[in-house]
Amino acid sequence: MYRSHTCGELRESHIGQEVILAGWVQKTRDKGFMIWVDLRDRYGITQLIFDEERTSTALIKKAQALGREFVIQVKGKVIERESKNENLFTGGIEILVKELEILNSSLTPPFTIEDQTDGGEDVRMKYRYLDIRRNPVRNNLMFRHKVSMEVRKYLSDQGFIDVETPYLIKSTPEGARDFVVPSRMNAGQFYALPQSPQTFKQLLMVGGMDKYFQLVKCFRDEDLRADRQPEFTQIDCEMAFVEQEDILQVFEGLTRHLLKEVNGIEVKKFPRMTYDEAMCMYGNDKPDIRFGMKFKELNEVTKHREFKVFNDAELVVGIVIPGGASYTRKEIDALIDWVKRPQVGALGMVYIRCNDDGTHKSSVDKFYDQDDLFQIANTAEAKTGDLICILSGEKNKVRAQLSALRMEVATRLGLRKPDEFAPLWVVDFPLLEWDEETQRYHAMHHPFTSPKPGQLELLDTNPGDVKANAYDLVLNGNEIGGGSIRIHDRSTQEKMFDYLGFTPEQAKAQFGFLMDAFQYGAPPHGGLAFGLDRLVAILGGQETIRDFIAFPKNNAGRDVMIDAPATIDEAQLKELNIKLVSKP
Amino acid sequence: MYRSHTCGELRESHIGQEVILAGWVQKTRDKGFMIWVDLRDRYGITQLIFDEERTSTALIKKAQALGREFVIQVKGKVIERESKNENLFTGGIEILVKELEILNSSLTPPFTIEDQTDGGEDVRMKYRYLDIRRNPVRNNLMFRHKVSMEVRKYLSDQGFIDVETPYLIKSTPEGARDFVVPSRMNAGQFYALPQSPQTFKQLLMVGGMDKYFQLVKCFRDEDLRADRQPEFTQIDCEMAFVEQEDILQVFEGLTRHLLKEVNGIEVKKFPRMTYDEAMCMYGNDKPDIRFGMKFKELNEVTKHREFKVFNDAELVVGIVIPGGASYTRKEIDALIDWVKRPQVGALGMVYIRCNDDGTHKSSVDKFYDQDDLFQIANTAEAKTGDLICILSGEKNKVRAQLSALRMEVATRLGLRKPDEFAPLWVVDFPLLEWDEETQRYHAMHHPFTSPKPGQLELLDTNPGDVKANAYDLVLNGNEIGGGSIRIHDRSTQEKMFDYLGFTPEQAKAQFGFLMDAFQYGAPPHGGLAFGLDRLVAILGGQETIRDFIAFPKNNAGRDVMIDAPATIDEAQLKELNIKLVSKP
Repeated sequence: MYRSHTCGELRESHIGQEVILAGWVQKTRDKGFMIWVDLRDRYGITQLIFDEERTSTALIKKAQALGREFVIQVKGKVIERESKNENLFTGGIEILVKELEILNSSLTPPFTIEDQTDGGEDVRMKYRYLDIRRNPVRNNLMFRHKVSMEVRKYLSDQGFIDVETPYLIKSTPEGARDFVVPSRMNAGQFYALPQSPQTFKQLLMVGGMDKYFQLVKCFRDEDLRADRQPEFTQIDCEMAFVEQEDILQVFEGLTRHLLKEVNGIEVKKFPRMTYDEAMCMYGNDKPDIRFGMKFKELNEVTKHREFKVFNDAELVVGIVIPGGASYTRKEIDALIDWVKRPQVGALGMVYIRCNDDGTHKSSVDKFYDQDDLFQIANTAEAKTGDLICILSGEKNKVRAQLSALRMEVATRLGLRKPDEFAPLWVVDFPLLEWDEETQRYHAMHHPFTSPKPGQLELLDTNPGDVKANAYDLVLNGNEIGGGSIRIHDRSTQEKMFDYLGFTPEQAKAQFGFLMDAFQYGAPPHGGLAFGLDRLVAILGGQETIRDFIAFPKNNAGRDVMIDAPATIDEAQLKELNIKLVSKP
Repeated sequence: MYRSHTCGELRESHIGQEVILAGWVQKTRDKGFMIWVDLRDRYGITQLIFDEERTSTALIKKAQALGREFVIQVKGKVIERESKNENLFTGGIEILVKELEILNSSLTPPFTIEDQTDGGEDVRMKYRYLDIRRNPVRNNLMFRHKVSMEVRKYLSDQGFIDVETPYLIKSTPEGARDFVVPSRMNAGQFYALPQSPQTFKQLLMVGGMDKYFQLVKCFRDEDLRADRQPEFTQIDCEMAFVEQEDILQVFEGLTRHLLKEVNGIEVKKFPRMTYDEAMCMYGNDKPDIRFGMKFKELNEVTKHREFKVFNDAELVVGIVIPGGASYTRKEIDALIDWVKRPQVGALGMVYIRCNDDGTHKSSVDKFYDQDDLFQIANTAEAKTGDLICILSGEKNKVRAQLSALRMEVATRLGLRKPDEFAPLWVVDFPLLEWDEETQRYHAMHHPFTSPKPGQLELLDTNPGDVKANAYDLVLNGNEIGGGSIRIHDRSTQEKMFDYLGFTPEQAKAQFGFLMDAFQYGAPPHGGLAFGLDRLVAILGGQETIRDFIAFPKNNAGRDVMIDAPATIDEAQLKELNIKLVSKP
């Protein structure tokens, strides 16, 4: 027994007790005749005191030799503190130390173990085990634990069964790239790590499990954009005998439960929006609705003049920045430059300032008179003191650009409050999306998503218009979950594979087991998966998922702490029947 | 909404209600004028009734066309059953069907979906999604869910934090073979899948997480013996500032909690036994103590005669089979044949029958007279009516052989009762074990296990005698958990690596991050891991882990349902910078 209490436990009610504590030396203050040591563990900080009058010289010497992050064990008496620290739960007491044992010494850490550290990202990742000692990182990991436990509890209470699905499965070229695992026992063959347990959870529904969930690692070998990880965790769920409405109810319940238990916030029924509405009003299928600034389409009200840019545009659309009329010309130019950056890609931006005197000042005064501008402002529902920002061009592009501007402006105005939560459902996603690169339609969700009733016939004539039984749960501008009602009959699934460019042989080789399963009494079913890393980050009021992962990888997919990946022995390669291809 | 109730829910209190049910057709009984259908889902079975008087002819026809495993939805009224079925919770009622919709048809399943199925192992694995519909398999998976939930709840309540550790880590040649994952972004390099999160959980302790747990998949590329899986699940735990006693307390608590919550059994304090005692008394470091038949060493009492086999043997040891004197000569010969099988490998077996008249009959009467045999029986604590079975030879071998015999006899006598639970701790394991193949000592547990205090010095002189701070939790003859107090200082860890044959360069390349971490204030720590698959099987009163895994692999490491592993595209190989070596 290394300790009788933790460093976060002792209070004034313990005064007079003999205790044993163990932990890390957070800091020492040495006044010569008196030494204070802040002793830290996961649970808190307790002040130790050594003084000339009450402590032996040998012990004082020992205490003086303590360095930061030394691991020590002390025995002593809980005494009342002279100057209490109201900010600390243990601030009313201190330990008058009688025995001190150094359990382990420490080199000087490469960065300070403080909430605000002097360590940069790289050094903190290399010494992640020291980074985890810092309160913000440890609290994030404990927060994640809490969310995971609540998720499991809620779903289990709702009758969901946690079933573990395999990690060594089969590679499927559809979708993102798989990580593969050479099989030693089956020479020349490979397992793949799952991008999600999609087919297995569907088979569990065919198997009558009725309600399934799992918190499960998934893997994608993608070129990593900022804040993506090659391995990530999903809350993976599936239900049988359900329609979309049943699923939305259950997972709205889960999300509401989490917001209540974890954040202490009660949220009303989540609004719902179709994909088309979301794109139209926010230019984005995961709108942040914590604030307004909805899109206003302005083609009609702008087209009666000779401004060719607007007249030729598929879409003329604006947002109103509340109070933006006060922006200086320089500030507006900065906004224009911002939308013209290659990452956003707009060719320009038209603005209309709604002056306090009721007049309007615009960058296209040459084309539109005060009456025109008044009409535009009216349509945009702008008020005196606002600024209207208008983009135009090809519909999909201009929506993405204006959405980026909307988010940027909201961030600058402080409208994206991390402690405010605005969930919503986006429903009726398109079944297919056009892929410019391959010049083909791809499944927007995945090939197992069912089209809405009666829409299958549209596939051959208007594929882009086919809506799917697919839905996303959006929170504060992030997709935190998504799912669909699945196809559950062989012929529809075959038709879908055919449409997506699979030959019957390919479909059989890759998903034959699933289509076979559909012939043996597959029930209607559907499900949803949450991205746990993102969900936890957002509930934690942050945006970076890496801060909620104990041992994350960097953008090159490397773990810089353990230095992985790494080369392996020739003998290992040989056993696996593979060899390296030397790069030219 | 496909259903208003499940098939396990309706009772006599629902009589008169209009309900909607959905599920699978378990069976139909068609008497022409009356048809009964057993409708099944995860929750139970409800009887549907169609009859001439109350059901339309069209509906009767539709019902007559129903095949086994069709998925249907029915609307109807709950009515009282004429002949009630006491064995069914829903046995007091039936549903008078008014509407019937076939949601999906089914081919005839390749085996019957019954508790006792006619399907062999291979076909059930290929159609695992149908096998899961069977009560025994589904109940096993639900049982596993319950155990997992209870484990998480208990540990979380004890202050353990569930931290997810990475799956894409670094290969280490020590121990079993790793599965590896070629990295596309880091050409020529590989990740490895973890055999356990050992180093990460130790780093979490260095990082001050204090108490960690995780239910986590682990991977070992081993030649699969019966009932081993290439991927398996661990309850992985670690604690800081603990001694062995603290860990035994916590996990004895967890195990007791599970036995109580899951099996409804209260177990007293677990007995403890040293490794040496276990080997001496049971010839086995995971003794089944549900029954006696302890080993009796007989060298002393047998050596005064001219029986060279015993006199030359390092160990002469016997067990007493209660009531075994009644075995016929043929039965005894069968036992002798059993121990002589290559899997056991004994050269022979000596028996002594303790006859009812007080005489003894032995296979070595030539060497030992009645007095001798009485002395031997006395030493073996055999009673009238018992049979003593004696093996002799090299100590380790003969212990293993007699242990096998002991278990076999107990099984035959029905002493290994699946509903009886006898946990115990085996402690003080040797630090090292001799490996005949490499002619070297290996870490018995793993290279991070600490020697008992003061024993490090023995390493150079009597390495086989060094005891470790290592312990196993044994339940009914199975190791269900094992762990150790770890080394937490760099110099001891270096010494250990050196002893195990690592060059300093190898140690640094593979575990440098851990040894670095030990320099920055690593606390004393230790932990334990349970094999969840095995634990669940034993708690479930069964021995085969495969029956508790949703989608297990066969002995060749294949998933026969999805047919994995499989070949992958040339393009995929190329991206990964590897190519196949064609076998000669």
